[in-house]
Order: sequence, then C-alpha cells, then structure tokens
Amino acid sequence: MRFVIIGGDAAGMSAASRAKRNTADIEVIVLEQGHDVSYSACNIPYNIADPQRQIDDLVVRSAKAFREKQGIDLRTGHRVKTIDRAAKTITGQTTDGTTFTIPYDRLLIATGARPLYPEIPGVDLPGVFVVKNLEDGRGIKAWLQSRPVQRAVIIGMGYIALEMAEALSERGIRVDLIKPRPGLLPWLDPALSKQVRLHLEEQGVGVYDGKTIERIVAADGCLQVVSGPLALDGDLVIAAIGVTPNADLARDAGLELSVDGAIAVDHHLRTSDPDIFAAGDCADSYHMVTGEKTWIPLALRANRAGWAVADTVCGKPVALPGVVGTAVFKVFAMQVARTGLSEEEAVNAGFDPVRVEITSKSRAGIYPGAQPIHVSMVGDRITGRLLGAQIVGVDQVAHRINAVAVALQAAMSVGTFAQSDLAYAPPFGPTWDPLLVAANQLIKKIPARDE
Amino acid sequence: MRFVIIGGDAAGMSAASRAKRNTADIEVIVLEQGHDVSYSACNIPYNIADPQRQIDDLVVRSAKAFREKQGIDLRTGHRVKTIDRAAKTITGQTTDGTTFTIPYDRLLIATGARPLYPEIPGVDLPGVFVVKNLEDGRGIKAWLQSRPVQRAVIIGMGYIALEMAEALSERGIRVDLIKPRPGLLPWLDPALSKQVRLHLEEQGVGVYDGKTIERIVAADGCLQVVSGPLALDGDLVIAAIGVTPNADLARDAGLELSVDGAIAVDHHLRTSDPDIFAAGDCADSYHMVTGEKTWIPLALRANRAGWAVADTVCGKPVALPGVVGTAVFKVFAMQVARTGLSEEEAVNAGFDPVRVEITSKSRAGIYPGAQPIHVSMVGDRITGRLLGAQIVGVDQVAHRINAVAVALQAAMSVGTFAQSDLAYAPPFGPTWDPLLVAANQLIKKIPARDE
Repeated sequence: MRFVIIGGDAAGMSAASRAKRNTADIEVIVLEQGHDVSYSACNIPYNIADPQRQIDDLVVRSAKAFREKQGIDLRTGHRVKTIDRAAKTITGQTTDGTTFTIPYDRLLIATGARPLYPEIPGVDLPGVFVVKNLEDGRGIKAWLQSRPVQRAVIIGMGYIALEMAEALSERGIRVDLIKPRPGLLPWLDPALSKQVRLHLEEQGVGVYDGKTIERIVAADGCLQVVSGPLALDGDLVIAAIGVTPNADLARDAGLELSVDGAIAVDHHLRTSDPDIFAAGDCADSYHMVTGEKTWIPLALRANRAGWAVADTVCGKPVALPGVVGTAVFKVFAMQVARTGLSEEEAVNAGFDPVRVEITSKSRAGIYPGAQPIHVSMVGDRITGRLLGAQIVGVDQVAHRINAVAVALQAAMSVGTFAQSDLAYAPPFGPTWDPLLVAANQLIKKIPARDE
Repeated sequence: MRFVIIGGDAAGMSAASRAKRNTADIEVIVLEQGHDVSYSACNIPYNIADPQRQIDDLVVRSAKAFREKQGIDLRTGHRVKTIDRAAKTITGQTTDGTTFTIPYDRLLIATGARPLYPEIPGVDLPGVFVVKNLEDGRGIKAWLQSRPVQRAVIIGMGYIALEMAEALSERGIRVDLIKPRPGLLPWLDPALSKQVRLHLEEQGVGVYDGKTIERIVAADGCLQVVSGPLALDGDLVIAAIGVTPNADLARDAGLELSVDGAIAVDHHLRTSDPDIFAAGDCADSYHMVTGEKTWIPLALRANRAGWAVADTVCGKPVALPGVVGTAVFKVFAMQVARTGLSEEEAVNAGFDPVRVEITSKSRAGIYPGAQPIHVSMVGDRITGRLLGAQIVGVDQVAHRINAVAVALQAAMSVGTFAQSDLAYAPPFGPTWDPLLVAANQLIKKIPARDE
C-alpha cells in the first residue's frame, strides 16, 4: 500500500507519522514544495517578538528525523502540479526543474491555506510581508535586523494581525492597524470588541477601521499606507487580511469544493474521490452546531484530521464529528475566546437567537487580582439550545471557553448548561462563574418549555 | 404564604433573596443562630493571610440590607431547637434566653456543616482553632495579632488545611501539616499527589502524613502536637480534618438522612416531608456520574440549591440534576482540580475503570512560561464512558477541569470527549490540550465498540 501525501505541515506530517505508527510496512511518501516541514506556524508572532530566537526554533521535528527515525519518504522541494485520478498518479516538478510522476493507492491533499493579499498597488514593495510560513518569518526577522524599524502598519484586524501588533510592540515598534470594514473582528460582539479596542489603544496601538486602503507607496525611505487623507507611515507593512484554502490542485482534478472554496470532505475526510482524502486548512468540516459545512482553518483540527485519515487509510476508519468553532487568541494582556455561533451567525444558520452580555469578575470579587470578565452568550429562542459564547478579559479567560465548547458538542440546552458543576475557589472565579451568570440571564429570555 | 428558613448563610440567604424577588408578598423569615449572615467562608484563609484585611470584609451583604432593602425578616441570634412537623411550627431560643415558636407553611433547613474535631486530649486548649465561620476567622486573626506566632501546626491535609498552610506561610509562619492516614488528599491520584507534596516541601512546609496524633499539650508557652516520638511545636494549631452535616434538627424531627448523615433530598431539594426542604452543606445531592446519592459540601451547590428551593416554593418548581464532583483549590502556586470519580471511587460505584496519567505542558512547549501539567483521567472499560479527571500544575489548571465537568454532565464517552473542539493558541496550551492527550491515551485502554 502506497500512501502519498501532498503537503508537509500539520495535517500532512500528522498523517504520515501516524500511518507509519499504525502499519510499519505501509509506504508513505510526503511531497512538500518548500523546505520546512512540521513547524509551529501559530508561534511565528511570538518568535518574531523575540530577537534572541531563531525562526528555526519553530521546527517541531526535522525532515531528517521523519526520514531516518520514522521511515517516511519525505521529499522537500517537490511541487505537485496535477492529479490524474484515472491513472491514480500525481505529477510535479522539483525546485531544480526535474519532473516526477508518482502512483498512489491512497492520496492525501494537505496543501493548507495561503494568505490573501490586499488588491492594491504597492503590495509587492520590499518591506511588505504576510505572516504564514517560516519563510515569511525569516523575511520579517531579517528586515527587522537589517534596519531601524520604528513604525509598522498592519493591514487587517484578525487574530494574526493582533498577535503581530503585540509582537512588534514588544520590539519597541509603534504599530497602527488599518482595515476597510468597520469593527475589529466581524464575529465579536460589539460590547466585547470595545474592550479589545480600548486595550489596544491603552497599549499605544493605532486602530483605524472603516478605512478603505488605496495603495502602499515608498516615500522618504519608508512605506506609507494611504487611505484618502490618511497616510500611515511604516518602516514595515504586514498584510494580515485572512487566508484562503489551497484547493487549486483539487479543483483542477475535478474534486468537489465547498464553503469558501475549501475541498469538500465527509466525516472520514474523504473527498468526492474515495481514494483521495483532504485534511487541514485546505479542507472543510462539519459544524456541530449548524450541522452544515464550514471552513475554519485551525491547528487542532488539522492535526486531528491528519490522524483520522491515517487511521482510515490503515483500515481503522475514524469519523470526525466536526468542529464547534472554538478559537482563542491573546493580544497584549487581553484574551479573546469564542465558540459556537455569534448572534449574526445564528440568524444566518436559521436559528432564532437570543443573546445576553454580562460583566463579572475573573476571581472572587474580594480576591486580589480580580479583573472584569465580559461574556456574550447566545441561545435559540425556539428550542432553548445553547448556540455559542464569547469571552474577553485580561485574567483567566481562555480555558473558560472550553466548558461551552463541550456543551455545544453535546447539544446542551442553555438550561442544562446553567446547571453544570463548574469549579469554584476564590482565586479562580466568583461562586457563580461568569459563564453561569450569563446562562442564568439567558434562560430568562427563552420561553419555558417542558424539557 | 410564610416561608421559614433555618440558617442564614449561602443556601439560606440565596433562598430568602430569590423568594422575595420571585414573589414580593411572600413572608420570608430567616432564623440564624449566630450574628453573621451571607459571608464568604471560602475566602477566610485568604483574609487571614493579609493582616491589613478585616474579617468583616467577607460579609457579602449586611443583615440590615437584607431586612431593609429586600424585606426579609432576618432574625440573628435565633437558635432553632425543634421542628414540630404535625403542627408545622419550629421552636427555639434566642441568645438572650427568650423562647420562640413560629408556624411555617414551607420550611427550609439550611443549617450547613460543622467542623470535625480530632478526638484527642488538648483539642480544647487556647490556640487550637478550626476554620469554618467568621467567628473562627476572628479568633485566629486576634490570636495572630496578640502574640508572636512563628510556627503553626495544621492537623489535616484537605483543601482547607492546605489553603491555611499557604495563608499562614504568607504571614511568615513556619507550618507543619500532620494527619493520621498516609497520603495528602485521599482522592488524589498518587502521581499527582506527589507533585503537590513536592511543592509544599519546596515552600518549606513540613508534611507528616501517616502519623497518629495522640494529644495536644501546652509546653513552654507554646503548643505541641504529639505523635509518638514526634512532637511538632506550634504557637497556633489549626484542626482542619473535615466537616459533617448539621442534620441533628432534621434527624430529631424524623426526616430521612442519607450519605454521611446528610439530610436526604430529592431533585427538588424536598426532604421526606413534602413541606420541608433542605439545601446547602446539610443536604445530600445526586451524583450525575454514579446516579447515586452523594454528599459534597460546596458553595456553588449551596447557592444553586437555595435558588431552586425558592423557585419551587414560589410555584415554579426547579429540579436540580445533581453534581459531578467538581472541585478546585490552590496551595501556593499549585492548582489542584478534580471532577467526577477517582479510580477507587469508580470501583466502589461498580464501574470497571481504566486510568491514564500523562504529563504535558500548560502552554505550547516553546512559548515562554510553559509549565508541566499533570492529568489523570478515568474511563469505564465496559461502556467507554468518561468517569473523571484530575489535574495539577502551577499554570492554567483550574479552568481546564470544567471541560471535563461538562462532558461528565453530558455522560460523554472518552472517544467523544477526545473529539472535543478545545481552544488552542500557544499562550494557552499545546495544539493537543493536555486533556486531549489524556483522552487519546485512555481510548487505547478501552476495547473498541460500535458507537
């Protein structure tokens, strides 16, 4: 059995390693177009923040180790260009121009996502970077080392943009954030978003939302991001406006695509061709709250999907139930966590949402260090079902979201979640955890039913 | 309708307040034998740690506010001695010796728990304290202020004992812990218990478990706790060996008792007399994992039960599903969290448990500040059901337990929990959260079934 994997990052290398662990005599070939495999992309901003660290510190496991210790035929510098589904072969070209054709029994497409670039003049100027892979990280670190960088402009206000705002600020760089649409994160409840904005401003970060960006220009030895009369100077510009699935190869092979152009896969990560799987940021998944397909490119899902494909390929089929849309990030001291649906997403999914937002404390009110914690929680008026929650604050936010994530997976009602036996001790929360305060409020907006 | 409540702490005052909010014209009489109502008992150790704070800072709401703002007929210094169920009256005596008899329509017993005292000579010596109510707190603080206290001996190693060890250490007092049975906390997995012990020892706390305590003696102006050849000196001795339900009143009235002598109540907190409810630390509850009765005296349950009784009394019956045994505490930097059943508890409840313990990191391994995190997780070999988890570590432990608590409430299998969509970002954990690492290991010990 030959298992061929296109892409050597989280999903691809997880699948490769697990397949070899499952079945020692399976032949696993991984084709990676770049030269880095199995690295922690999520840690790039934190690495950039620290001049003492090398980007190569982010490599989790070396290509050598995969080859020699795990017996994986890992071929870097191999770009796959076509999939011939009838012949069950893939063809491509190496960085030195050699073409190759490789037959497969089972194929995994783990080509990830690529950053979107703003469609504006000047986006290709030197000093304009995206933050996706180690090469991007190397480029940014080299740029920071090669000249004095006092100001940076970040286009976008998603979590990578905000993590980069923190990273560059830590290096003493003044940061401005700019984006065309109003609001920080489109899914974040306005009251919670306001807390994040205040925190950014307290940290000296400029926040310019609702500003159409016309062009980037080079002027006086630095760059300028221009929006009408506003021109933001930067010795460095980061474009972090989002990512899109790398699904061209799959599309050209006639495989079905779905939400946001991601490769459509079933619960076993099978594409519309039963011998071809897709996993990681290039593939879609099921949303356990809506029951519909979604595309949420995150690391845990990529690793988990890689494992599941390997198990299925090795004859121990694993079905993944899907995701509930849990995500967390930190910007300076502010933690932002979400799971499930926002109110708007709930409307779009056909629910009749009710929502509350409450402010409570991260610890017992009289315990030293207690900080405000803001919770927004959404339920369905008709069924009473819990649909989602968002939390922001500077103390003990991140892990709180997981209680809701598990409740969503279990399709709990708000009433049932309000009865959950959450941990209490003064250093960790009020007797009624902020999540329970929110749930108790939300119940009041849902007409009583016989449960 | 007259609603009479015996006991003015968490359960009693929660019930009183909510009853008045539900139904403005209900007559609510609360009879409290002491003079403090509605205080945060859980914060007593942290208050003792800080000489600048007054014990009265722990009062959440004054008796005056309950009376004047909420219209509750709150009578302190009123000790109830008997319940006449046939006549539907209670009788008692005030601190000044006046007797009283009060008729009720509905009665709530919220008499809480009382500390157990070691049955040894010398336990009544001056300088020996328990830690249960504000009077105890006042006594300890006065003792600490009135003389130089350099050493303290704490009898017991439960969470109150450990919280007091931290509190007294913060005041510069050398602390020794001693108890008769071997091991720190009987329910804590030995590998995790070892971490807590090491942490205590690193903080300079003496840990003497497995030492039968013979007596406390006064000698040379200080106290000595004597165990054979071992004599631990203390200018202060704290006895923190546990609590027992205050159920004498209920027992004498012929109400049914259950586990550990707690008052037996149904899901509506009704005792064996339909007009009498019991809530808080004096009452039992259902354990959602075992389906059996349990007695776990904790603050969230007391507050929640008080509310539920008020709702039921006011004609909006609320049934509480029960508890899953979630608890958390901190001792110095070490956080200890548990939910569900330990391996031994699982055996006793008739399960066939399998267990794993794993060590992972609190943050991504390469993120600054990542600390070891230890997880013990128990599942049922036969059904695959998740039965419990314990976590210890010094970083981001407490809230992690709640994901498992909700999973237990939903009666999830280990396999389903292993698929949960937990939050990931480098400051908050590895891509595979330690809980998922444990669940993934535990699955391997459970024979595959068709789910």
